[in-house]
Parts: sequence; C-alpha cells; structure tokens
Amino acid sequence: MNTPYCRQIHYYETDKMGIAHHSNHIRWLEEARLDYMKKRGISYVHLETCHILMPVVSVSCEYKKAVKFDDEITVEAVLSFFNGVRAKYEYRIYTAEARNLVAVGASEHCFIDEITRKPVSLKRAVPEYYYRMMQVAEDDKSRRKGNQ
Amino acid sequence: MNTPYCRQIHYYETDKMGIAHHSNHIRWLEEARLDYMKKRGISYVHLETCHILMPVVSVSCEYKKAVKFDDEITVEAVLSFFNGVRAKYEYRIYTAEARNLVAVGASEHCFIDEITRKPVSLKRAVPEYYYRMMQVAEDDKSRRKGNQ
Amino acid sequence: MNTPYCRQIHYYETDKMGIAHHSNHIRWLEEARLDYMKKRGISYVHLETCHILMPVVSVSCEYKKAVKFDDEITVEAVLSFFNGVRAKYEYRIYTAEARNLVAVGASEHCFIDEITRKPVSLKRAVPEYYYRMMQVAEDDKSRRKGNQ
Amino acid sequence: MNTPYCRQIHYYETDKMGIAHHSNHIRWLEEARLDYMKKRGISYVHLETCHILMPVVSVSCEYKKAVKFDDEITVEAVLSFFNGVRAKYEYRIYTAEARNLVAVGASEHCFIDEITRKPVSLKRAVPEYYYRMMQVAEDDKSRRKGNQ
Repeated sequence: MNTPYCRQIHYYETDKMGIAHHSNHIRWLEEARLDYMKKRGISYVHLETCHILMPVVSVSCEYKKAVKFDDEITVEAVLSFFNGVRAKYEYRIYTAEARNLVAVGASEHCFIDEITRKPVSLKRAVPEYYYRMMQVAEDDKSRRKGNQ
Repeated sequence: MNTPYCRQIHYYETDKMGIAHHSNHIRWLEEARLDYMKKRGISYVHLETCHILMPVVSVSCEYKKAVKFDDEITVEAVLSFFNGVRAKYEYRIYTAEARNLVAVGASEHCFIDEITRKPVSLKRAVPEYYYRMMQVAEDDKSRRKGNQ
Repeated sequence: MNTPYCRQIHYYETDKMGIAHHSNHIRWLEEARLDYMKKRGISYVHLETCHILMPVVSVSCEYKKAVKFDDEITVEAVLSFFNGVRAKYEYRIYTAEARNLVAVGASEHCFIDEITRKPVSLKRAVPEYYYRMMQVAEDDKSRRKGNQ
Repeated sequence: MNTPYCRQIHYYETDKMGIAHHSNHIRWLEEARLDYMKKRGISYVHLETCHILMPVVSVSCEYKKAVKFDDEITVEAVLSFFNGVRAKYEYRIYTAEARNLVAVGASEHCFIDEITRKPVSLKRAVPEYYYRMMQVAEDDKSRRKGNQ
C-alpha cells in the first residue's frame, strides 16, 4: 500500500536545457496523486462515475535538482488536509536510487458537480468516498507523527 | 481567408536534441486544421454543439528540417478529400520568413455521434456543416488546379 | 511594448473535464515571460548564446476560472524582483475580452553557466543583460506605483 | 527480453473528447522504442555519449480504438529495417488485458553527428552499436518468420 509511485523520465519530457522541463513535474504530481488514491482504494474513475470532479485550485513546486532523460524518480504523495470540501496534497520527488530530493510540491483541490460545475460537499454527494478519504487523511497524519 | 496559420516554437516544445520534439508537429497540424476551418466559417466548437465529434483516424508526418526555440513557422492546410463520412487534410509546415520546408503531413478523420460514439453521415447529422465543408473542398481543389 | 501576451486555448490542451489542463497554465507563464522579455529587448536566445541558462527554481499558480478550447486569453507578466542572481516574475491570466481573471501565477529563476551548471552572477557574466533587466525591473516598479 | 512495454493512460493525456489525445500515441511509440532497445542492450543514453543522435525522419499512426484515462496499454515495437544509415520501427498498441488493437504505427530514423548535425554511418561512427542493432534486426526478422 505504501509503495511510492515510480516512473522514468521520457525523452519528450526533456527540453533544450537537457533536463526535464519544469511543467512535467506538475504532471507527475497528478500521476502520483491518482496512484496514491488508487492504492488506498479510492479510484478517481469511480468518483467521475458519481459525476463528481476534483479540479485543481492551486499548485506549487520547488525545484531542487534537475532530472534527465532515463532517470528514475519516485513521487511520494500525502493527503495533508481534507474536510469534504477541500483536499490538499503534499509531494516529494526523489531520484529512485540515491534518493536525492528533486522537488517539493503541493496541490489543492475542491469537489464540483460534473453538470452544474458548482462546488459540492463530498460528504453529501458520495459519502463512502468521503469516509474513505477521511480515513486516508487520518492514516497519513498518524504515519507522519510516527515518523517524528 | 487564405492567411496561413502562423506561430512560434515554444521553449517547452524543444527536447534535449535542441529542436522541437517531433510529437509537437502533430499538434501543430491540429492547430492549423482548426484555424483553417474557422477562417472558412466552419467552427469546430459549433460542430461539438451539434454533438458531433471528428476524431483522427490516421496521421502521418515527414520531417524535412528541424526547427528551434523561437523559430516562426507557418502551417498550410488543405481539405484534400471529403465525402461526408471521411475527411482528409494535407499540410505543409514552412519556416515563416525563408519558407524552408519543415515538414509535410496528413490526417484523416471521421465523424461520430458524441453519445453513441458511432460513425455518422455529416450530411444527415448537420447538413449546413456538410455543405460548407463540400464548398471548402471544392475551393481547395480549384485553387490547387489554378496553382498548377 | 506593453501589449500583453495573447493566445488561444488549443484542443490538445483540454482534458476530459472539458477544460484546459492545469499543467498548461505553467507553460503559458513561460510563453508570457519570454514574450515579455523579448518585447523589452531581452532575448532569451541571446542569453543562451552567452552560455547562460535561466532555470526555474519555483513555480506556483492559483486557478480562478476554467478556460475552454478556443477561448482567448491574455497573460500579463511583470518582473517583480531581480538582483542579478535571482529573478521573480508574477503573472495574471485573463480571458481576452471580458477580462475575467483565469489564474494568478509566480515563478522564480536563477542564472547558471551552461557548462558547469553552477549559479552565476549575471552582472559579471553578461553585464549588458544585467543592466537591461535592472531597467525592466525598475520600469515595472514605477508602473505599478503609478497604477496605485 | 521480449516483455512488451506497458503503461497507463494519464489524466493529462486525455482531451475534451474524453479519450487520449492522438498526439500522445506518437510519444508512446518513442517510449516503446527506447524501452525495446534498452531491453536488448542498446541504450540511447550510450549513443548520445558517443555524440550520435537518432532523429525521427517520418512517423505515422493509424488509430483503431480509443483509449481512456487509467486504461492500461502495451506497446510492441520491432526494428523492421536497419542498414546503418536508416532504421525503421513498427509498432502495435494493444489494451493490456483484452488485447484489443488500439493503434498501428511506424517511425523512420537516421543517425546524425551531434555537432555537425550531418548524417553519419553508424558502422563507422559507433561500430559496436551498429553490430548490436544488426543483431536485433536479424532476431526480429527470424521471430516474425517463426510466427508465420
């Protein structure tokens, strides 16, 4: 369950500086977020089936170390905040082997109705998804406390 | 109306070879196709409003000359075949000033119903769009004959 | 000189939510930043010729309003901080006509030597570029004061 | 060695049609090609170290079946032609489980010197790479004959 998300840098993700273009890291955060949720039994495909979308409200990324074509990275995600209306994730990207810190990121999300595009309370809209996310947020909090 | 589509190469479109990655050309063909139709009064947004989609059935591109960050290119499109069920476009990408040939491309499309995802005859589905496209295909044929 | 950067949302920039994917905004910030500098006589291509690169140290974006295929946006950039070692830009993305706020962004950059990949002082490395950027930062500061 | 390349469709690879945008398939071909070579002991990173690049001369793709977010695909590549100056790859993309055909593709490549950007003969430039590729092309030919 706690296996971090792992992937390689594709050739088309590099730019003329010879490193992965910084916009790709934002995409890797998304990959890692969806993988993280899926591994905890929370499928985004399922949420969409319930006509709920989870758009990005804000995103940020600090770049610590450039990565290159064919480098392997791991992206660790945690659900750092969730109240049924907003969710916040925090991320750390590492090189897979040496575990050098590549980037630190964060993203904030809300929940909207697919049709009206208005914010919804997840507790009312898809209660089982809400309780599962609450559980994940709790687990992440305990785990981080345990790490201290 | 016959102004070709013009745009600059973005930094994020380059790869570690120092040139625009070849997958971007496929995207430029799409940009040019939609721009070309729009300039001829055929809006893809309008087609979507009629619940018709126009997916790509095949695409091809021959790369003649590399382009670099900040280079300006023009992409010329023609509707080379259209029968209400299939449409084929041909493209030529040039450097904007020197008009060096950058790439030659082609794409083939069908028309499908947004809901059923089954092929439709555009003549029956959106007749005014069909007749407008027929007109464009005719105009392109005459124009090419005139150029010979 | 003060014309803001303007562009349309491409079809391939949309995602299954039907709106431009949030990673594209990060790319538009780059487009706007390079356009902004160019319009002020500071060409990134020139900087590269001097073997200086300007990688992104951090980036952030708050999403206020979704944009869709074919929407026209303007991206306004300002050089909000510059000391020869670090540069910070701030951005506002608007819908072109109605001027609804689409997103607010920021990016931070350093200057590195193309070969050694070590940070450099722009003042020492490319003085004329340094003085030009200082001028732009000053102009932006006065302009913002004038707007208050 | 013959494990095909496998990956999932990312959310950011979808477009407003709700399916993976057709330009991504071109990128998956590249992923599969580089993976295929690597698994046969031919690393593109090594080729670059020898100052040889392998740009795309042409690419084509026929789309048979749409793929969606979170779908798993396999991309099978073969080196169908190689003479030291040109290389041609052929690809078949399948859904991972049901093995429905998603797309059929092809790409052609040449070899150029990183500095002069002129075509080179791989046999003269990096003989060990040339012989290894010859071997792979032979193996692929026998394997396809065996399959008949």
